[in-house]
Amino acid sequence: MILTVTLNTALDLTYRVPALTPHTTHRVTDVVERPGGKGLNVARVLAALGHETVVTGFAGGPTGEVLRALLTPLPVRDALVPTAGATRRTVAVADRATGDTTQFNEPGPHICPAEWAAFLDSYETLLGQADAVALCGSLPPGIHVGAYAELIRRSRAAGVPVLLDTSGEPLRRGIAARPDLIKPNADELAQLTGAREPLRATRDARRRGAHAVAASLGADGVLAATPDGTWQATPPAPVRGNPTGAGDSAVAGLLSGLVEDLPWPQRLARAVALATATVLAPAAGEFDAGAYEELLPRVQVATA
Amino acid sequence: MILTVTLNTALDLTYRVPALTPHTTHRVTDVVERPGGKGLNVARVLAALGHETVVTGFAGGPTGEVLRALLTPLPVRDALVPTAGATRRTVAVADRATGDTTQFNEPGPHICPAEWAAFLDSYETLLGQADAVALCGSLPPGIHVGAYAELIRRSRAAGVPVLLDTSGEPLRRGIAARPDLIKPNADELAQLTGAREPLRATRDARRRGAHAVAASLGADGVLAATPDGTWQATPPAPVRGNPTGAGDSAVAGLLSGLVEDLPWPQRLARAVALATATVLAPAAGEFDAGAYEELLPRVQVATA
Repeated sequence: MILTVTLNTALDLTYRVPALTPHTTHRVTDVVERPGGKGLNVARVLAALGHETVVTGFAGGPTGEVLRALLTPLPVRDALVPTAGATRRTVAVADRATGDTTQFNEPGPHICPAEWAAFLDSYETLLGQADAVALCGSLPPGIHVGAYAELIRRSRAAGVPVLLDTSGEPLRRGIAARPDLIKPNADELAQLTGAREPLRATRDARRRGAHAVAASLGADGVLAATPDGTWQATPPAPVRGNPTGAGDSAVAGLLSGLVEDLPWPQRLARAVALATATVLAPAAGEFDAGAYEELLPRVQVATA
Repeated sequence: MILTVTLNTALDLTYRVPALTPHTTHRVTDVVERPGGKGLNVARVLAALGHETVVTGFAGGPTGEVLRALLTPLPVRDALVPTAGATRRTVAVADRATGDTTQFNEPGPHICPAEWAAFLDSYETLLGQADAVALCGSLPPGIHVGAYAELIRRSRAAGVPVLLDTSGEPLRRGIAARPDLIKPNADELAQLTGAREPLRATRDARRRGAHAVAASLGADGVLAATPDGTWQATPPAPVRGNPTGAGDSAVAGLLSGLVEDLPWPQRLARAVALATATVLAPAAGEFDAGAYEELLPRVQVATA
């Protein structure tokens, strides 16, 4: 199975309003609740690709109960660890006319040392059954900034390939523990390396410790620097839509390709086709399966 | 005891952000959860004034459970009726620098006919113990627009004085059932009567069926047209602060004065002092008890 870790899960709320006007009152016409956090999005896509998938991280309080209830009907196994605090909410306010979204992210519950220890115990057990693991998203309050580095060391000790998708100091610290793959976007990459030019920044990120780096560059696709070579995969044509979750779908493409032992160009094509099919889907964070099948053979992969 | 009815209760969330910028992502630095809906705010103030207070209306789902848990430590009795749907949330996003607030209100759960019937049964029982009742706020989906008129008729049949604080069509229909008092703000009054001039609009609202009308006019205080005369009560000086809940505090002042059988000028002075002390309180919807005591003798009440 594939394990995805979301330490700061979220109950994602989407509010539809006619148009956002600061400092006024809005009647929300439509409310959607979804289980959220990057690792949960990745897991949903992995399951849709036919992979047995387990989600872990923390969930707690009334919002955590709602999140777990929303996970129940999905084809992913819930191995979330209880926390005393309440799972955070995120609120995405979408303008009805334009689809433009204004996002509010709560910080998340404080994780105490005993809860972190319980998580590590559970993580070790799950690693014993895992073919690969993805570490996704921000750290909740109370978790030390080197937490991902610790999880990477344990994965490597267990012989389980590990992908890291985070930003800032947790990414910087995580890379030093030599993950198999990182998937920064252009901003995260520039913040990490100080270099704006993607090829240079991607190679620089490898030198910092990541075995492979797959940078998601929006409409420019994915640029990957790996031990086997450097490639750029680009979608056949620009698309319009909601980019929410496109990066998570790319992670699912990369990770499934790794587990299936596909050559890098095929992994990258899958990542780009899934990300593009996610932008095209009407619901944020879902991917359009028909568009994915149609796009996959048309993604261009070239040596960079 | 005093009964307050909030058919569309809410779990009120306040998010503090550095500044709201549409179509960007905001990290919320501070989250406050409060039991909300106008009648709940009124009840809190009545309890602080020393009145035995009971709250009813609907609560349901995980958000309803949180709301009821937040009510438990407060000195008000919870007589909320269960509903299958989930209690709505409201999200107030406050800019840290200016305190300006952007509000998002979910619509609320759909109330089915059996739930409404259960509420009416409970309401009849509570009326038997009530000295006065306040009907507050919007109607949730599924409740017919004449619902407040029905509750007013039942209060009057039971000999219990009834105050109505709502807007739009529910206010228009409610007035026709001859409530003892309505407390519109300037906009609600103008929408009801078509008249912008407050004195004319207030008198017109009385002619439509309300025995007394106390219009809250923000910094201009409260203008009341009653069977005993017409008065305007004004705060001693303009104040700056958060007006959220000031109208609800005014309702509590009017209702407590009615139950204590105070002369109208004293009721109005209390309403204005409470509303002003609410604007001055640091937390939205709370009132500053010291400011209230200090303001009360300084409110000006003049015949209008």
